[in-house]
Amino acid sequence: MASSPQRKEANNPSADALLNATSALMTERNSVDVTFVDIAQRSGVNSALIRYHFGSKTGLFKALLERDAGGTFDNLDALVNAEMSAVEKMRHHVSGVIKTYFRYPYMNRLVGALSIDTESDMARFIAERFTKPLAAAQQAILEQGQREGVFRDIDPMLFHFSLVGACDHLFHARHSLKYAFGIEEITDDLRRRYADHITGILMESILLKP
Amino acid sequence: MASSPQRKEANNPSADALLNATSALMTERNSVDVTFVDIAQRSGVNSALIRYHFGSKTGLFKALLERDAGGTFDNLDALVNAEMSAVEKMRHHVSGVIKTYFRYPYMNRLVGALSIDTESDMARFIAERFTKPLAAAQQAILEQGQREGVFRDIDPMLFHFSLVGACDHLFHARHSLKYAFGIEEITDDLRRRYADHITGILMESILLKP
Repeated sequence: MASSPQRKEANNPSADALLNATSALMTERNSVDVTFVDIAQRSGVNSALIRYHFGSKTGLFKALLERDAGGTFDNLDALVNAEMSAVEKMRHHVSGVIKTYFRYPYMNRLVGALSIDTESDMARFIAERFTKPLAAAQQAILEQGQREGVFRDIDPMLFHFSLVGACDHLFHARHSLKYAFGIEEITDDLRRRYADHITGILMESILLKP
Repeated sequence: MASSPQRKEANNPSADALLNATSALMTERNSVDVTFVDIAQRSGVNSALIRYHFGSKTGLFKALLERDAGGTFDNLDALVNAEMSAVEKMRHHVSGVIKTYFRYPYMNRLVGALSIDTESDMARFIAERFTKPLAAAQQAILEQGQREGVFRDIDPMLFHFSLVGACDHLFHARHSLKYAFGIEEITDDLRRRYADHITGILMESILLKP
């Protein structure tokens, strides 16, 4: 019992190949419904190694979430603690959240699948590891803006849900984008325009009017 | 071939029981992963009748979407054509969208599941039947507000995605609400506060400043 299965993933080529294959399949299918067989086929790695590296599909999904989102929290901490106005921090934050969904469009569905399909311990873990720090950072920026006299008083929990939902939906609703608006691909330009749009909406609504 | 299987559902007790059971299961599980066996068990209706009434699970899901969302489009048309300011129309619209997700929290996931898991004809149908009319109504209200000189110029497509995503996310992310914020149930009061919050955010951001 020197190390848990989850620990073996780091810098291991077959574990990386499994994570990359899972990420690619979820992006292409716009869905988190991928099987061991799909992942093994795509990665060229024997599906027995999924169990070896990650214990289960849930373990693999959890490792993927950690890989994709885990690293962003150090940046978020740095942002919250930076010498910067709350307005600038909020702009950077919204742009960062949208970049994350642009890169990993399946992220919120992965969170949802892990929280529903597994025991509530996993939902609690995800809330502690991802949701709470994100909401706390947003609350800190909102409070800084109020101390600076530029933001109005706003419920940080409601703000959290509206920000995450608005940022995510363009990447989530690929079918709507394609069939209702004729857009097949989210280009870097569209991603930037959407970030500007969401930032504009959120900033306009929280800034105190002169 | 007097009528298609889908037509038989109207006012048929066993078809209604199947739709109600599916709706209840999706709400309770916060997921659209329900099987024929689940639906038959919950409804007390033999699963063979799913095929009889709806042709397939996809047919049942489509009928459920039509039942839940189909009726709202007449109201939306009436709203767009009403003698009312664009500001009032937009407030009513946001509140109506949130009420719909409050009542049918699985709606966007149902749209997603139908659009991904089935052939693109279904995704195109859903876009034509639901997404396009919704986006067109929003665009009409935005344009009215610009004619009235109260709304700024805003991209209606980006606005559509931000509005739908923001409205939906509280109901979608029940696990976050529970484990990150300790809220087990979305009460009518929370639903109203969220509607006020989203309306405030969107209205503040599209209103021209005096």
